[in-house]
Amino acid sequence: MKKDYVTYAEDIDSGVAQLFTGVPGPMRAYSQLLEEASKPGSLDAKTKELMAVAISVAIRCDGCIAYHIRAAHKKGATRDEVLETIGVAIEMGGGPSVVYGAEALEAYDQHAAPAG
Amino acid sequence: MKKDYVTYAEDIDSGVAQLFTGVPGPMRAYSQLLEEASKPGSLDAKTKELMAVAISVAIRCDGCIAYHIRAAHKKGATRDEVLETIGVAIEMGGGPSVVYGAEALEAYDQHAAPAG
Amino acid sequence: MKKDYVTYAEDIDSGVAQLFTGVPGPMRAYSQLLEEASKPGSLDAKTKELMAVAISVAIRCDGCIAYHIRAAHKKGATRDEVLETIGVAIEMGGGPSVVYGAEALEAYDQHAAPAG
Amino acid sequence: MKKDYVTYAEDIDSGVAQLFTGVPGPMRAYSQLLEEASKPGSLDAKTKELMAVAISVAIRCDGCIAYHIRAAHKKGATRDEVLETIGVAIEMGGGPSVVYGAEALEAYDQHAAPAG
Amino acid sequence: MKKDYVTYAEDIDSGVAQLFTGVPGPMRAYSQLLEEASKPGSLDAKTKELMAVAISVAIRCDGCIAYHIRAAHKKGATRDEVLETIGVAIEMGGGPSVVYGAEALEAYDQHAAPAG
Amino acid sequence: MKKDYVTYAEDIDSGVAQLFTGVPGPMRAYSQLLEEASKPGSLDAKTKELMAVAISVAIRCDGCIAYHIRAAHKKGATRDEVLETIGVAIEMGGGPSVVYGAEALEAYDQHAAPAG
Repeated sequence: MKKDYVTYAEDIDSGVAQLFTGVPGPMRAYSQLLEEASKPGSLDAKTKELMAVAISVAIRCDGCIAYHIRAAHKKGATRDEVLETIGVAIEMGGGPSVVYGAEALEAYDQHAAPAG
Repeated sequence: MKKDYVTYAEDIDSGVAQLFTGVPGPMRAYSQLLEEASKPGSLDAKTKELMAVAISVAIRCDGCIAYHIRAAHKKGATRDEVLETIGVAIEMGGGPSVVYGAEALEAYDQHAAPAG
Repeated sequence: MKKDYVTYAEDIDSGVAQLFTGVPGPMRAYSQLLEEASKPGSLDAKTKELMAVAISVAIRCDGCIAYHIRAAHKKGATRDEVLETIGVAIEMGGGPSVVYGAEALEAYDQHAAPAG
Repeated sequence: MKKDYVTYAEDIDSGVAQLFTGVPGPMRAYSQLLEEASKPGSLDAKTKELMAVAISVAIRCDGCIAYHIRAAHKKGATRDEVLETIGVAIEMGGGPSVVYGAEALEAYDQHAAPAG
Repeated sequence: MKKDYVTYAEDIDSGVAQLFTGVPGPMRAYSQLLEEASKPGSLDAKTKELMAVAISVAIRCDGCIAYHIRAAHKKGATRDEVLETIGVAIEMGGGPSVVYGAEALEAYDQHAAPAG
Repeated sequence: MKKDYVTYAEDIDSGVAQLFTGVPGPMRAYSQLLEEASKPGSLDAKTKELMAVAISVAIRCDGCIAYHIRAAHKKGATRDEVLETIGVAIEMGGGPSVVYGAEALEAYDQHAAPAG
């Protein structure tokens, strides 16, 4: 029953594209918010992406895990960094964060696996 | 990996029916609550249903999206009204509401599609 | 122990102003998102504000209640419309929404009270 | 800065009374739901009330803690039973449940204290 | 579209095992927390497990439902006890808890069904 | 109506101490979880603390903000780092994270202010 997180992230891209067409005003502003919040400053981009992963796990948002794990992987986050991020989420979320943390690790491993 | 939201809403109907049999006291009262909260008054029934959609997206409840999008469609909500409802949810929920808003739009489009 | 919701909304304005100074990029984008999501379209501005109230109650966000009840009052929402919005939130949130719905009603009544 | 949880629970009673007057349909149904869900069956009333406490802590609902701790105390829940209930909430909610669990214990101790 | 909750709980076991290998420090401590919070004291182990089910439904955590329903079944919780637990969750969570409560009942029935 | 976040964090310390006495098994395990999740590894301690702040804001947990902002300040987090952390939370939480992000900034400024 394991999800295919690579495909899942792509499905979200399609859904987001549909929202952009349907409700462009809020979506353009949201997109700007995402860009502004994610760009490097006092904290680098990878750290910010891992923070988004931490929140995604803590709030039990499967689609957010798919989306932000892909981004964290692209920005060079290592498996160990993802694991320690999950550790923080578990401290902040208990058992439910264990369940969603396991999803985040699975998603990371799918993105990190050599294409075959 | 797209969900079939029409079937999903029907699955929820079956699950609710089982709960009615198993725990009739609370379920009858809940059902009454749903009816009282949904019926037209100062706000019309469609607006109230769209509010339920807004909450469903903001709290990331997939099944609630399936259930309340079907009801909103039945009560005559247009695609544009659903989109603007999603816009409010995105303002109140950020990225996670984008993910679940996309699900709500997909669900609406499945209900609105001509049967084939 | 009743909160002064008029002052509370003003405190939020001050806090938001501080965030604007401190982290202007994301805040400008968020502000744009708020504007885009709130402006009239297929749904009028008052309805959208009441949706934000519904979400605020359902997610148990006290400050959000203070902020969006003030806005709903400014946009002409009546006490009955706020009450029916709370009704939807109660259906979607159970007992916790009763607790926060009572806060929303108190906030509305404070804004609606003749200054004296 | 400790809250007075006895007064807080009474404030909630007042707020609920206002909602009953303002939006009687949904409130009567909710009230019926509360009664049906709380009454003894396979599980006794005290156990059910402690479950409501567990949920209140896990979802970080201060007012719900005030309300359901009072009810649990009235139904004879001991301090140890409340503490073990908080333990379950901590397992299910991590650090945030520690914060709100401490509030629940404080609320219990205020209700259990001899009037003086 | 019904989930296979027996397999789902086993998938969570696998995911948890991976987390144990990857981030052993936090996971060992979490595991100790789970054990301490679950063991009988003033409240028996079955009651505590049902509290975890109540929280799982109220916070809409599918994986948590799979995990804690299995445990509740193992610890001898009856169908009626699970149903009344769901009733409490519905009072504390409204419609979304109806949706997830139906999942919990389905999960229970799958575990309780005679293999064959 | 501004909270005194320095005192608030100390109140939480007292509440946690009471829980330790009352329910030592789960609290010792939770404490170990906090220690394991917070200690430096692939990510340094300050970054992990800022992640806890990000989650605290995103889940709207006032007490968690008080607790983790104090810890982040002690571990050397700068005002700019806290602000960018709030930015990520706003992207992941929308308007409610603006409200609680403002609380986090206020809390930081109170801890950073020279005693006088």
